[in-house]
Amino acid sequence: MSEKGLLIVLSGPSGVGKGTVRQKMVESKLFEFQYSVSMTTRKPRPGEVDGEDYYFTTKDKFKEAIANGKMLEHAQYVDNFYGTPLTPVKKMLAEGHDVLLEIEVNGAMKVREKMPDGVFIFLTPPDLMELKDRITKRGTDAAAVIEKRMAQAKVEIMMMENYDYAVVNDKVENAVNRIKDIVSSEHVRVPRVIDNYRKMIKEN
Amino acid sequence: MSEKGLLIVLSGPSGVGKGTVRQKMVESKLFEFQYSVSMTTRKPRPGEVDGEDYYFTTKDKFKEAIANGKMLEHAQYVDNFYGTPLTPVKKMLAEGHDVLLEIEVNGAMKVREKMPDGVFIFLTPPDLMELKDRITKRGTDAAAVIEKRMAQAKVEIMMMENYDYAVVNDKVENAVNRIKDIVSSEHVRVPRVIDNYRKMIKEN
Repeated sequence: MSEKGLLIVLSGPSGVGKGTVRQKMVESKLFEFQYSVSMTTRKPRPGEVDGEDYYFTTKDKFKEAIANGKMLEHAQYVDNFYGTPLTPVKKMLAEGHDVLLEIEVNGAMKVREKMPDGVFIFLTPPDLMELKDRITKRGTDAAAVIEKRMAQAKVEIMMMENYDYAVVNDKVENAVNRIKDIVSSEHVRVPRVIDNYRKMIKEN
Repeated sequence: MSEKGLLIVLSGPSGVGKGTVRQKMVESKLFEFQYSVSMTTRKPRPGEVDGEDYYFTTKDKFKEAIANGKMLEHAQYVDNFYGTPLTPVKKMLAEGHDVLLEIEVNGAMKVREKMPDGVFIFLTPPDLMELKDRITKRGTDAAAVIEKRMAQAKVEIMMMENYDYAVVNDKVENAVNRIKDIVSSEHVRVPRVIDNYRKMIKEN
């Protein structure tokens, strides 16, 4: 049966370990997905490869892409733009590939508006205190920043209700295995496959 | 986190192999569920144990249970009643156990009305011709019976749209593994867990 790919959106509060989980998903070889490369206006860091780590571009070109509806989502941090170009995502899905987006919560909600068929996974800290621990251990943030992040995390956890699944990131391996199960089960959800079966009945 | 168990309803057209999949699910040790024992008015066959294979009862008592709303679903075949007693199912779910029901499609739809939170899995033959092969190989049915079953199967496949998942029973092991993934992912669906998280935020 020919089937469209799944758009898998991995999100969650800052500090929860989205990047680590995504990296482990790639390394584990448990998945067959293509990873969506983000576009940014910030300068490449040493070792970063254009088209692999990011698509690096200018502010003018990024703004043009937004104006032309060619960004699935985008955000501005400090003085730079970051976002997901729409065309490569749509192409990969149409070819039957699952596509993974790792993205912060505001971006994920924008994606949900444009692609409600996606599978929206919220990565959750085992509890808020552990989130606080992790942020503290990073050691780069001032107390005020930590408090602000905690408040934001509460808001973000309340945002969980806009997601399909809440996966606890107690251990990266557990989270990766659960996401594998989610992807497997979403591939056989009736609204995704019913048209193929209707066709099968007609052919008999 | 304390959590209610999942009601897992395994259904599908006759001849698709529901019983074999259920048996393999039990043997595989991949699941931690309790199996709902049906009630029937037919006589026990040699070796069948009351309370294990079925709850064996009289027609009067069965009719009384229906009248008192104590059956989750029931059906009449020829001259006997078969059905699922409600009380043990509710008790097991409340205790946090997943409960498996293997049931034909009409019964499954009745369960859906009473327990919409259940996970409804439709077991599907790889194609209708294979279903025909399987029924023929049983060798106990006349051609007219086979034709009738085929027509019924088409109706049942159209019923698939009332289910959450459509699992192809190409190989029993594949079906069992897919159901394992479905159960795992359903345990972290946001509508099932959101209340636990809301509580967590309040506690911080």
